[in-house]
Amino acid sequence: MSEGREIPVAVYAAQFDSLAEPVAVDAGELIVDAARRGGVQIQQPCGGQGRCGRCAVRVESGRVRRRSLLRLSPTDLAAGYALACQTVVEGDIAIVVPPPERIERRLTTDHVAPEVAVPEGYDAGRSQSVRRVVLRLVPPSMDDQRDDWARLETTLRRAAGVERLQASLEQVRGLGAVLRASGWEVAVTFDTGREQDDAARLIRVQGAAEAAGRPLCGLAVDIGTTTVTAWLADLATGRVLQQAAEYNQQISRGEDVISRIIYAGKGAGGAELRDLVLDTINGLVAAACGQAGVDPDDVVKATVSGNSTMMHLLLGIPPESIRREPFVTAMNHLPLLRAGEVGIAMHSDGVVDPLPGVASYVGADITAGALAAGLHAAPQTTLFIDVGTNGETVLGSAEWLVACACSAGPAFEGAGIEHGMRADRGAIEEVWIDGRTYEPTCRVIGRARARGICGSGLISLVAEMFLTGILDKAGRIDATLGTPRVRTGPHGAEYVVAWAGETESGEDVVITTVDIDNLVRAKAAIYAGFTVLADATGVSLDSVDRILIGGSFGKYINVEKAIEIGLFPDKPWDRFDYLGNTSVRGAYLALLDREARAEIARIASAMTYIELSADNSFYEAFTSALFLPHTDLSRFPSVAAATTNGG
Amino acid sequence: MSEGREIPVAVYAAQFDSLAEPVAVDAGELIVDAARRGGVQIQQPCGGQGRCGRCAVRVESGRVRRRSLLRLSPTDLAAGYALACQTVVEGDIAIVVPPPERIERRLTTDHVAPEVAVPEGYDAGRSQSVRRVVLRLVPPSMDDQRDDWARLETTLRRAAGVERLQASLEQVRGLGAVLRASGWEVAVTFDTGREQDDAARLIRVQGAAEAAGRPLCGLAVDIGTTTVTAWLADLATGRVLQQAAEYNQQISRGEDVISRIIYAGKGAGGAELRDLVLDTINGLVAAACGQAGVDPDDVVKATVSGNSTMMHLLLGIPPESIRREPFVTAMNHLPLLRAGEVGIAMHSDGVVDPLPGVASYVGADITAGALAAGLHAAPQTTLFIDVGTNGETVLGSAEWLVACACSAGPAFEGAGIEHGMRADRGAIEEVWIDGRTYEPTCRVIGRARARGICGSGLISLVAEMFLTGILDKAGRIDATLGTPRVRTGPHGAEYVVAWAGETESGEDVVITTVDIDNLVRAKAAIYAGFTVLADATGVSLDSVDRILIGGSFGKYINVEKAIEIGLFPDKPWDRFDYLGNTSVRGAYLALLDREARAEIARIASAMTYIELSADNSFYEAFTSALFLPHTDLSRFPSVAAATTNGG
Repeated sequence: MSEGREIPVAVYAAQFDSLAEPVAVDAGELIVDAARRGGVQIQQPCGGQGRCGRCAVRVESGRVRRRSLLRLSPTDLAAGYALACQTVVEGDIAIVVPPPERIERRLTTDHVAPEVAVPEGYDAGRSQSVRRVVLRLVPPSMDDQRDDWARLETTLRRAAGVERLQASLEQVRGLGAVLRASGWEVAVTFDTGREQDDAARLIRVQGAAEAAGRPLCGLAVDIGTTTVTAWLADLATGRVLQQAAEYNQQISRGEDVISRIIYAGKGAGGAELRDLVLDTINGLVAAACGQAGVDPDDVVKATVSGNSTMMHLLLGIPPESIRREPFVTAMNHLPLLRAGEVGIAMHSDGVVDPLPGVASYVGADITAGALAAGLHAAPQTTLFIDVGTNGETVLGSAEWLVACACSAGPAFEGAGIEHGMRADRGAIEEVWIDGRTYEPTCRVIGRARARGICGSGLISLVAEMFLTGILDKAGRIDATLGTPRVRTGPHGAEYVVAWAGETESGEDVVITTVDIDNLVRAKAAIYAGFTVLADATGVSLDSVDRILIGGSFGKYINVEKAIEIGLFPDKPWDRFDYLGNTSVRGAYLALLDREARAEIARIASAMTYIELSADNSFYEAFTSALFLPHTDLSRFPSVAAATTNGG
Repeated sequence: MSEGREIPVAVYAAQFDSLAEPVAVDAGELIVDAARRGGVQIQQPCGGQGRCGRCAVRVESGRVRRRSLLRLSPTDLAAGYALACQTVVEGDIAIVVPPPERIERRLTTDHVAPEVAVPEGYDAGRSQSVRRVVLRLVPPSMDDQRDDWARLETTLRRAAGVERLQASLEQVRGLGAVLRASGWEVAVTFDTGREQDDAARLIRVQGAAEAAGRPLCGLAVDIGTTTVTAWLADLATGRVLQQAAEYNQQISRGEDVISRIIYAGKGAGGAELRDLVLDTINGLVAAACGQAGVDPDDVVKATVSGNSTMMHLLLGIPPESIRREPFVTAMNHLPLLRAGEVGIAMHSDGVVDPLPGVASYVGADITAGALAAGLHAAPQTTLFIDVGTNGETVLGSAEWLVACACSAGPAFEGAGIEHGMRADRGAIEEVWIDGRTYEPTCRVIGRARARGICGSGLISLVAEMFLTGILDKAGRIDATLGTPRVRTGPHGAEYVVAWAGETESGEDVVITTVDIDNLVRAKAAIYAGFTVLADATGVSLDSVDRILIGGSFGKYINVEKAIEIGLFPDKPWDRFDYLGNTSVRGAYLALLDREARAEIARIASAMTYIELSADNSFYEAFTSALFLPHTDLSRFPSVAAATTNGG
């Protein structure tokens, strides 16, 4: 490339938005070099290798040639974006250098904004199963001695068309006092149930004055094996008021569902696990309510999603049969429950709706996730991968859905990793390594001092280590590179991602050989899962139109890096969509919309479960995938090309 | 009459069944005198006044003239019965003297046999809402990974046509273990609910082998203000296995519903009253199950009847509004409940069905009682009086029903009376007093030593005391009779019913002026109730065809004596039927038959409640009735005649 500069054919003017005067540029010069000469700093975390995409600039006018389209979507291209380190000048140009934040957001598949979008056209009156109506009852008199309940019921029937109303004994006990204290003017909150002809369930009767101005809130909960997520929503507007997530406290009793099930089978283990997950959930409810300024008593409905083992443990149902051949659950389609009987610290007569699962290893998280991903309505063949501890995958479309699960372990959620953490403030969520110096550049959530590495950070880090030659394809660290970043620690070779001076704890943040091995096993399990699913149904991965990624990665996952380590199939990155935590999103949609809830039930009934444990081909596929990116490089042509270029 | 003997017209032969030879009898001689001459003892507790009916004999052949038909029903007459003390010989006759037991049973309106008759044509398969079916489930396999619940539900649907099955979380928790321990062969007990399209409620899943040979039992409970009664029935055959009754332990916190309601309103009073009635019920359940050899866990259904206050207190619903104008209840039509939530010590997932009431003072005891009495199907105008603490009365027919209640107090159940007791072993249940000697003859339940006086005994005793002149019409004891039976006790004048030597305690059993006053007030309240009801509806008591008596009197009530004290209207005694505890009987019918349960609900909806407290005429009627039998003797012509003859 440098030979082109010896015989300059032309000199062009490059106008950068931050400069008063244009910079003179030789034809064929890289934009990044022209910028540097003019004093404009463009970040290049990957060392100018065109891998990180962080040097993207917008070409407002003029002619350029993009040597690499990596990291640029068709939308990006249409908007004029180009990678400054990979784009040469071929005429007078005007360049806008966006602030780093905008680049980051643009280049990540970041669909989960901090503010969750309310489903378009949400109308609580039409789709919400919970209703609150204010009733002015005719007080009893000697001419009208109807009982309190009948008085309430008939007035509610007239006012809201509620044909049948169910109440608990406790509610009947409290009714008379509320009616009289309120002067017979009450706000009645009830849930109309799942089906059109279900009896309505009374949630609450309160004085109309007391209820005035108080919100009616709901909770969408996803109980992951590793992470529990809760969204607090205003049921009237549909708006998510607060999101909260925390590690499932059950982790201390086992990292995966199998070890939890074993623990549950010992003595009071089941009760203990139940208490732990309830503590976790209730901590989130308290935190979310506290931050949103909502009284937990105003939270009157919850939809709960999670894998089948998590649902069993939450409800105190022994999960033992889930782990024993022939692997069956106690109950996939659970009834509506009272918050009080479940133990969730919201209004005790609030309705808890446990979403339906399909099988032992394809639970409500996947049916809810499939809804959130729109799988059930997809016109073309779609692959949905829930990148989590249990690695569930669904393949199909509006016509058919097959699903499987493979135990990936908790690495993607930052658990079981020396310096792993959840995608939370202080987590390193993306890493770029300079291919010459092996120095990393890290993006840390909240722009805080580093506290650890979250799942997306791990994927990014391992991909960069591999592409820069720090790791070989077997995942071994090369100790001969002559960089202080690579050293020997208590668990063997390790790479220092952040020095003590840059971290919150004041200790180095490292990734160890053991961590890398965990991540490689995790990605191999997931890769093996969807390849076996494709093989079993005779669908080629080439014919898959879209790949939807779910998982608790925080705000984003870097698709190219996930392809580079062999986690995702090697497809153009614009075929991917990262949907974030689809399980909690599905629970949220079911919370808002009765029809969405019914759709999840239809998905659960329609989905065919393929049991991988009965399938030898799974183990073979897993073993083949225990390399970076894979033993069979022909499956990853783009990675093969990148390692040839940059490695 | 004695002048006929001076000129004997003829001498006849009277053949008594116990004698080898006939006795020669003067024409016109009383049978009882002829018998005495022949050495045949015929009992005459009332001293030959024709009042007690205990001297009834059967005239097998020959001509006699009955001077009094008192105590003889048309059926008795058709069978040839005659009172030996009131019947003269007018030809050769053959006489059978029945054993005293037969007389007693025949002459009491004793429809409640110790063994309750199962409703004719009872077919559990057709009318019972509880079912138990044995299912052999296909065990799960790798080819059939349906969840445990779906497996159970589909098999049950095929085997028993159950479309929807509801279970508690606790039941789902236990399901897997039972299915596996039983080798997938289980007995499933469920209740199909009240309505045809109700979801079935799962009661129990047990191993088929474990269930084999075990009965399926139910409980009919009547919670009286004073007495709680429970019948334990076999749901398959409908047979009542055991009856048990005990004073409601709440009595110690107030004798009538008003004082209970006041007590319930103070601090933890409501909880205390609930515990007390539950203790009472559970004691009865334990006793009945123990005596019948039934495991309380095999008691899977209970119907509960009682007045509205008792129902509120049992279920922990504050009854305060019942006693305050405008006197309304919290809920008359209560939902099906779980035994566990109610607190009845049967199978905790058993179904408890609280029967529906009409109003604050016309509760489930009356609707169930009306069913048991057949009021809802009566072709002609019928008066139904529940002689209990609350004195509920229903007037009507298949076409219309009106009801009222008046607080009678607990005297009829033997409570609030110096030597009062329940109709139980050792209770004096009927008394005859010799009009010349004032000596009483007592019938004691169980032919035991006297322990006290029950309700029917009190009525009988007071009537006899009045008819023999021991009491005047104001209910005052005549201290001038010169009998040691009348004396002055700590509460004023009293009459000794049984001397210490005849009693179990070794103390005299007496009736005091205070007791008599209580009884008179109680009977006045009831009499006033139904007269006001008749007046309010414009129905004359003369046009009432049948009078049905319910109440906890044990096996019987003596109708004539009840008329004599002015408790019942003065109608021919064959118009009366004593039905015993109609409330528990109605609960029993509802326990057995879904259609009977539905009928009670229809009765409750159709019955019009008349509030007496808003009715000045009630107080006037009550005051007029505070005499024996009444201030207006023209209302009691038969009593006027008897007091003229015998008093």
